Amino acid sequence: MNIKLSTGKSIPIAKDESILSALKRSGVYLVASCGGKGTCGKCRVKIQGGKYRTSASGKISQVDKEKGIVLACQTFPENDISVEILEEARLVVGDKIALAKSKDLAELFRSFGKEIAPIVKRFNIKLPRPTIEDHISDLERLKRELEIKGIKGMRFSQAFISSMADDLRKHNWEIHLAYVDGPEAIFVTSEKQTSRYGIAVDIGTTTVVVYLIDLSDGKLIDVGSTYNSQIRYGDDVITRIVHATEGGGLEELRDTVTEDINNILETIIEKHGINKEHVECAVVSGNTTMSHLFWGLNPGHIREEPYIPTVNSFPLWKAGTARLHINKQAPVYTLPCVASYVGGDIVSGVLASKMHKNTETALFMDIGTNGEIAVGNNEWLVTAACSAGPCFEGSGIKHGMRATEGAIEAVKIAPDTFEPSVSVIGNTVPIGICGSGMIDVISEMLISGVIDQKGKFVREIKTGRLRQGDEGMEFVIHKGAKDIVLTEVDIENIMRAKAAIYAGIALLIKEVGFTLDNIERVYVAGGFGNYLNVDRAIIIGMLPDIPKEKFRFLGNTSITGAYLCLLSEDLRQEAEEIARKMTYMELSVSRNFMDEYMSALFLPHTDLSLFPTVAKLLK
Amino acid sequence: MNIKLSTGKSIPIAKDESILSALKRSGVYLVASCGGKGTCGKCRVKIQGGKYRTSASGKISQVDKEKGIVLACQTFPENDISVEILEEARLVVGDKIALAKSKDLAELFRSFGKEIAPIVKRFNIKLPRPTIEDHISDLERLKRELEIKGIKGMRFSQAFISSMADDLRKHNWEIHLAYVDGPEAIFVTSEKQTSRYGIAVDIGTTTVVVYLIDLSDGKLIDVGSTYNSQIRYGDDVITRIVHATEGGGLEELRDTVTEDINNILETIIEKHGINKEHVECAVVSGNTTMSHLFWGLNPGHIREEPYIPTVNSFPLWKAGTARLHINKQAPVYTLPCVASYVGGDIVSGVLASKMHKNTETALFMDIGTNGEIAVGNNEWLVTAACSAGPCFEGSGIKHGMRATEGAIEAVKIAPDTFEPSVSVIGNTVPIGICGSGMIDVISEMLISGVIDQKGKFVREIKTGRLRQGDEGMEFVIHKGAKDIVLTEVDIENIMRAKAAIYAGIALLIKEVGFTLDNIERVYVAGGFGNYLNVDRAIIIGMLPDIPKEKFRFLGNTSITGAYLCLLSEDLRQEAEEIARKMTYMELSVSRNFMDEYMSALFLPHTDLSLFPTVAKLLK
Repeated sequence: MNIKLSTGKSIPIAKDESILSALKRSGVYLVASCGGKGTCGKCRVKIQGGKYRTSASGKISQVDKEKGIVLACQTFPENDISVEILEEARLVVGDKIALAKSKDLAELFRSFGKEIAPIVKRFNIKLPRPTIEDHISDLERLKRELEIKGIKGMRFSQAFISSMADDLRKHNWEIHLAYVDGPEAIFVTSEKQTSRYGIAVDIGTTTVVVYLIDLSDGKLIDVGSTYNSQIRYGDDVITRIVHATEGGGLEELRDTVTEDINNILETIIEKHGINKEHVECAVVSGNTTMSHLFWGLNPGHIREEPYIPTVNSFPLWKAGTARLHINKQAPVYTLPCVASYVGGDIVSGVLASKMHKNTETALFMDIGTNGEIAVGNNEWLVTAACSAGPCFEGSGIKHGMRATEGAIEAVKIAPDTFEPSVSVIGNTVPIGICGSGMIDVISEMLISGVIDQKGKFVREIKTGRLRQGDEGMEFVIHKGAKDIVLTEVDIENIMRAKAAIYAGIALLIKEVGFTLDNIERVYVAGGFGNYLNVDRAIIIGMLPDIPKEKFRFLGNTSITGAYLCLLSEDLRQEAEEIARKMTYMELSVSRNFMDEYMSALFLPHTDLSLFPTVAKLLK
Repeated sequence: MNIKLSTGKSIPIAKDESILSALKRSGVYLVASCGGKGTCGKCRVKIQGGKYRTSASGKISQVDKEKGIVLACQTFPENDISVEILEEARLVVGDKIALAKSKDLAELFRSFGKEIAPIVKRFNIKLPRPTIEDHISDLERLKRELEIKGIKGMRFSQAFISSMADDLRKHNWEIHLAYVDGPEAIFVTSEKQTSRYGIAVDIGTTTVVVYLIDLSDGKLIDVGSTYNSQIRYGDDVITRIVHATEGGGLEELRDTVTEDINNILETIIEKHGINKEHVECAVVSGNTTMSHLFWGLNPGHIREEPYIPTVNSFPLWKAGTARLHINKQAPVYTLPCVASYVGGDIVSGVLASKMHKNTETALFMDIGTNGEIAVGNNEWLVTAACSAGPCFEGSGIKHGMRATEGAIEAVKIAPDTFEPSVSVIGNTVPIGICGSGMIDVISEMLISGVIDQKGKFVREIKTGRLRQGDEGMEFVIHKGAKDIVLTEVDIENIMRAKAAIYAGIALLIKEVGFTLDNIERVYVAGGFGNYLNVDRAIIIGMLPDIPKEKFRFLGNTSITGAYLCLLSEDLRQEAEEIARKMTYMELSVSRNFMDEYMSALFLPHTDLSLFPTVAKLLK
């Protein structure tokens, strides 16, 4: 049997195989936030002809059903079938992500006042040439010389030794011995070979970013990024953990993300004509689950009480083990994690923010697919995860999508006519709404009176924009061939997410005996952080009502921290110390969390005195 | 195109591919001592029909040529061809090799007075179960406990960690931590799991032997052995080194011998119902080239002046790296080598002989595919290689073969009629002659006057056994459908080999300022050593004329030493010390070697006063 796509492409499908599965096997990936369980309603395709059976799904409206729209994960062809993949179900990969500025990075590194000290060190050695009289083996010859120089206990792997003999001769016995602390020999190279590169990698749940760095001067040579292809197995960390614990899932997830990194790597390495053997170290930053998956470690125990990761502080393993396509012997440093839901990305972020060095008390928040927060200063640090869920990434929202082309990213609602005007990424016809658009539209609806503080539509207002949809009341943000709406159910989901973030912040600050007034600085990190409108986020009560001038947007601090660790031994030590020093609070088990959360399930909050600027606006 | 074998089997062959190559590709291996260069004349097949072209070879007699006999390596079919593989060209594998006696081994180990101390050590640990409050990662939990017990700096590989989390839970947090010195964690197991096994492996140029040992009591559970399948790429060490340095050859040789070991392993492990994960360490002994090939190290520099191995003292690497099918984390100890042509097998042999512990001065010799010798006592040790070549294994001898079924292993010649009587391994029709048979027939011919002291046939004697063959004069040892002969050229080759061994012994003893009288003990090791008739070997002047009671036959000491090292840390240390202490003499560059060698190119020797017992016999 075959699936004929509207593009003309034909794809084989087995008996009793879902359309989603067949497409995935052939490399056509759909948005399937739930991992193909029929619950997210995203993998919509239109059947244009052919026999099939499909499970009824509340996620498909009657009108759409009549058009032949089905969920690909719940639909099984019974003979050849013609299928059109709907625009919003198509998984767009490879979008451009704001390019880091090399100058800013270099300046940030300089501001730490550290020398460049890569993970791989070098030792200049001139060996006496072997003769019939001095016939000890190559390894013993090297060891003898190291002993003369006072270096003892060097370890030698089979990988090192298998290339050493030829390299010693090729470089005429005058070599640089590359090694890491331990000490362990990494490779032998010529004295003249001075090109040394490293990579910094951020493995986000949604996005993978790679920096290629010149280790001689710390310059950013190039950046590459892509969506984390693990998305095909589910949007959020929990769905991926579940997939990892199913037969073969762990290897699948590991291979997928490694392939993403290698694809970027190979492209930028080739572009700059660099020999991959000269890429001699890597630093990886990611949340705890991403770090476990990258190293092929079963993350299963992360989601079972009492939520224990296998490793927080990762040993220095090799690129060969990590399956990265750089020098196989290159050491790979992994940013240390703090707990199951506070990972190396947050340690990286705290490092990049410098809050661990300053006397002022700061709040750090990284709002990505999950929300993590940290509070503290140079004396103490506490951290927590908010389990906000991925709704700001589009998951669980009827027309939700990521901040890519076609996403409504900003909305204004005319206070008299309730007519919305939208701005769309790429200035095209909108196909959905992304996180910043959601925050905008909810705050605008609140201010203009379309919704009340409970997030419910005010049915009395007069506008054709408010209507009854398949899933209850909805507000039409954009009218067109396809209307883009926000439903009452969507608003509930967004309120749950923002309440989780706010409750996390509020509780964490309380737990350390502080109030919001004590917070002297707020660092907002994460891809999301780039577009976030603070005023609007305060209006819906996602961010606390703190003066706008205290906010600093840092962008992707996970990759920034990885970059810093690539360049400096001191900063790697600082990262380890941050992870050790951070006290993790498991909010979900705190009695007070539910109280804080319930109080925050209001716009902006049940206690309006906490949001004086919003209270003023609402008057 | 196809080759149709007389067995009925059909094998595909490409255009311009030799019959040898096509057979090899299909898993049919012929004896090809020279590696397929047309010089050894062993890979004889009979063409029964079909068109082909073949290079003329002096190795095929006119009579044989007329029968359609050709060298498979020099023959290229031009269309479908029918081929019969001649019995003597068939590479027989899997012959039985004398089974070691478990009792003797245990007794030998006891005689060293050492406790059993395997490479993998164990540590009993009971970890507190994680809770919401005590939520550190599994690895940090383990490290914390180790710190309490005063163990610091333990290393953890990705392989260890990837199975640790599940194992800790499976064994209810009460575990044995298996580790090696370094220290490095190897695996986690239950307190109750007390079955522990190890393997000792001898990688000979010709034979591979594996012992499966119970580490709790040192008992030999089973033995397996096979021919080293690297033979298909050539008989001797040099041919293999050459093959290793040709594209892909190194990996081919490595895979071949690893497969041999794994085949034996899997058979005996399965036979005894042992879980391969419980085979937790290995010791490997082999000559320098075999050890390099086993670890995938290019042996190319071994044969180039100044003859430098890449490694003599091998680090402790893992079974996973070695590709052995036991616990992947199992450490593999490699017996240290001394020089390019004195390897771990000799260190192993010296250890097993205990000559390094005794005050009496001993001569140790291992006559296998090569000949290596050592002289010394508990104060000093010198060693040398003789480069005798593989003629005693059958290579370079017209009807030479290994000591397997069908080989003439002993010969007597009636002093009046010159009629020989032979004894054949397996009591079958003889198809060739092996090393001990060669020594017998030459010594008998010398005593009975068939040859003179130069190894030339005495043409005057009256016997039909002496005749003109294709390659000059020859003596018919056995008459039958196929006559088995020894040619004058064969005798020359054997004399060169025995002269090399004798010259090595004589020179080494001289170099240390000794005479034969100072040698209080002679240890003869090697597969060859099992069958060697000392009297006859003295008659031809291969062994020095030392009283017979000083000789001790030790059999395969390479595997015995590996067994000892598997059981005891002290004995591994002793092996390292033997290797360090042994002074290697490169005989081939010594001015005196040529003199010694030339003098020994006589039967028994140009200086008969060195062989008083033989002088008596010759009278």
